[in-house]
Amino acid sequence: MNLNLVLSIVGQIIKVLGYIMLSPLFVILIYREPMGNMMSFIIPALLCLIIGSYLSKAKYDPNDMYTIEGFMVVALSWLMMSLFGSFPFLLSGELHTFSDAFFETASGFSTTGATVFTDVEVVSNSILFWRSLTQWLGGMGVLVFVLAITPSGRSESVYIMKAEVPGATFGKLRSRVSSSAQILYRLYITMTLITVALLILARIPIFDSVLLAFGAAATGGFTTVNTSIAHYNSTSVELILAFSMLAFGINFNLYYMLLNRQFKSFFKNEELRWYVSIISISSLLIGLNLFFNGYGFLQSLHDAFFSVISMITTTAYILVDFTQWPIFPRVVLLMLMFAGGMSGSTAGGLKISRVAIIIKTAVAEIRRITYPNRVVSVHFEEQAQDQKFIRSIINYFVIYVLIFGLGVSIVSLEVPEFISAFSLVSAMINNIGTGFGSVGPTYNYSVFSSPMKIFLSFIMIAGRLEIYPMLILLAPGTWKRSLRSK
Amino acid sequence: MNLNLVLSIVGQIIKVLGYIMLSPLFVILIYREPMGNMMSFIIPALLCLIIGSYLSKAKYDPNDMYTIEGFMVVALSWLMMSLFGSFPFLLSGELHTFSDAFFETASGFSTTGATVFTDVEVVSNSILFWRSLTQWLGGMGVLVFVLAITPSGRSESVYIMKAEVPGATFGKLRSRVSSSAQILYRLYITMTLITVALLILARIPIFDSVLLAFGAAATGGFTTVNTSIAHYNSTSVELILAFSMLAFGINFNLYYMLLNRQFKSFFKNEELRWYVSIISISSLLIGLNLFFNGYGFLQSLHDAFFSVISMITTTAYILVDFTQWPIFPRVVLLMLMFAGGMSGSTAGGLKISRVAIIIKTAVAEIRRITYPNRVVSVHFEEQAQDQKFIRSIINYFVIYVLIFGLGVSIVSLEVPEFISAFSLVSAMINNIGTGFGSVGPTYNYSVFSSPMKIFLSFIMIAGRLEIYPMLILLAPGTWKRSLRSK
Repeated sequence: MNLNLVLSIVGQIIKVLGYIMLSPLFVILIYREPMGNMMSFIIPALLCLIIGSYLSKAKYDPNDMYTIEGFMVVALSWLMMSLFGSFPFLLSGELHTFSDAFFETASGFSTTGATVFTDVEVVSNSILFWRSLTQWLGGMGVLVFVLAITPSGRSESVYIMKAEVPGATFGKLRSRVSSSAQILYRLYITMTLITVALLILARIPIFDSVLLAFGAAATGGFTTVNTSIAHYNSTSVELILAFSMLAFGINFNLYYMLLNRQFKSFFKNEELRWYVSIISISSLLIGLNLFFNGYGFLQSLHDAFFSVISMITTTAYILVDFTQWPIFPRVVLLMLMFAGGMSGSTAGGLKISRVAIIIKTAVAEIRRITYPNRVVSVHFEEQAQDQKFIRSIINYFVIYVLIFGLGVSIVSLEVPEFISAFSLVSAMINNIGTGFGSVGPTYNYSVFSSPMKIFLSFIMIAGRLEIYPMLILLAPGTWKRSLRSK
Repeated sequence: MNLNLVLSIVGQIIKVLGYIMLSPLFVILIYREPMGNMMSFIIPALLCLIIGSYLSKAKYDPNDMYTIEGFMVVALSWLMMSLFGSFPFLLSGELHTFSDAFFETASGFSTTGATVFTDVEVVSNSILFWRSLTQWLGGMGVLVFVLAITPSGRSESVYIMKAEVPGATFGKLRSRVSSSAQILYRLYITMTLITVALLILARIPIFDSVLLAFGAAATGGFTTVNTSIAHYNSTSVELILAFSMLAFGINFNLYYMLLNRQFKSFFKNEELRWYVSIISISSLLIGLNLFFNGYGFLQSLHDAFFSVISMITTTAYILVDFTQWPIFPRVVLLMLMFAGGMSGSTAGGLKISRVAIIIKTAVAEIRRITYPNRVVSVHFEEQAQDQKFIRSIINYFVIYVLIFGLGVSIVSLEVPEFISAFSLVSAMINNIGTGFGSVGPTYNYSVFSSPMKIFLSFIMIAGRLEIYPMLILLAPGTWKRSLRSK
């Protein structure tokens, strides 16, 4: 591993983070917060600029960038972002322990949306803005943002983008990575602004609208109120947010297709069909189950639709306390948490394309067992997929399940029941933020011990970066080899 | 598919079942039960002999036997065995509905050990004996038994043995399948008799000893009392059963090695090392956790050891009500339920060899991701394993997880909490019989609806036969193709 290269790029990221950290100052000015609040952002911003500049000066050969360096850059950057990003929470006095602040920031950047605040309604606007901004940045990726604003196509970029943009299939939009990153961010900003505008039209205050849109865009789930979406008690807000979450759970490459008038390829997209089918079928199943359990018909479908979208996109905007539902709808929601949104969207979870390929591989295996002499291949997006590609998806799933199991054993040391342990790890690794049992929608993460909060922060970041970067960062082999090569 | 061939072999199995069904008559004579009880066994036995003889007369060419026919023979035989095996329960009047009787019989043959009896202590000895006998036969396999008693090596046998003997690696003991089957059953009988003898020495009544040994040998878990092993309140009984379960969870090929004085290969066996390591580490972790939660030190280790062995071998002999334990030990036990015993043993679950290969594949994948240009292979039992073999193991795991998820959604329609749904499906598919939450050790399955009992019976048999036979039986393609070929 080329440590100089890794540190230099991480330095650049930290520097950019420093500049971004100055943006809450505008919120302080607009909402006339005490000027003293400014120091909570200026001090860590300066720290980022100084440390970032120092690190970024390390000399390196950009041709030394390989997969392992890409993973290391991403893993270290996200840990550093969560570290430096936690300072405003501490300096402002809104949070009091490092583990709380680190958890809240990791939850933001990873778009998880789990919180340690017991009452967000008393938190200052500038801190709420910073919290939601980390989420919005984490949604599309901070490194992708850096690529979007750096002028030229850099040879190392493709490895970073591969490691940070979620999903099995990384389709480059353009030959030059920096322009791909720019297109992604332009789409992301435009769609966020549309959501803000619609929410303002639905008579939500501007500040709330911006932060709600950030939460939906990142499929994160932070709000400015304690009771999430139920607070607004408005069907139009619920529908705007449902369709907004739905939209941000779609692969951004598809929007690029639409912009280029490739309507046919858009509607033919197999992952999109799976996504829409899974959402429709789950909403219907849950809606019918609620109806048969005595809920009103339209109310059942409405609540089911909102909750399905909220959970499958891993946003966890809460409209109804589904921990009060019968167990069947809860089990369905729990499974949707693992499915997640589409590849190349801002959603967490396994991603729909992987789920589709996993199911198709299972079917193929059964055919292979039945007729051992036949050649059986897995088709996806209208082509037979390469064996190695399938293997990488399936093995990712296996690793996901194993890490999930390990996570459940570890958190079971601090939670009271199995459903809490199970759904807590699911809420963390899938970047949802809300589980069932005692970690339901009304849950607050401040009760955990400090080591557990740090562990959960790692799990959230690992989930957002799709496991490998964090695993490789923590693998002893990575460091041994790196030191030996020096 | 060659339907004649399938029906003919299924007929032979049913015929043999008819003879076996006469054995409880001795119990009736010995324990001086009313002579009327005899009809509960004689009528279904005659039915089996008549139907079996009729079916077995179908003409077929043994060379038409391929994998699919092997799976179909096994799946259909097990369903028929559970069907005909349920008649004694109904005719004796001990059970009153077909779904109860079918569930109890499927639970027996599949070595699950879940029961619908609310009070087994009032059930007649002959029925208890029949119930435990189904378990003992199911442990090593009824078709293997038929192969053991039929004189010559038949060309179709290898496919049957492949489909019925559990585990990823099917090592033929001898070139002729029938002698392999004979060796397996000789070992099985000898080890069962040793367990019986030890239990009698520990002052357990003969009838109880035989049935306890049947339950341990099959890693099934049926007993003659309502409170399982806790009833006997004897450390020596607990130790005898613990080591007996441990022994029946070991691959029988290894005992054949011992008989042939291949001690080196025995101790070098990698799966055995994993098995012993997993049991030791889990017992220690659970024991220490119990100790730190205020239980006595030796008692903690003793209870942990017994429960670990009871669950990992999928026997579910119950000594302590572990639903009262803290959540960490319960999560560990839940995971052990999925591990199961070794390949080629009588245990259920995924099997240790698969677990080892799954973990090694995950590690290999991480190395592959880190260094994409290196060739990474998975070693097991001292050799690099073929890619196709690894793929088949991993895909089996994926199918297991998918079916498990589907099962949890379906049973969630009838259970009150998530842990019950989760551990119920685990108890069924892994052939354990006991879960957590409301389906804990004191649970009784009679509360489920009839369709749910039938569904659970299918899951138990599917688990015992390692999924594929039942999946292929239920696949519409199998039947379409079969009818078309006519």
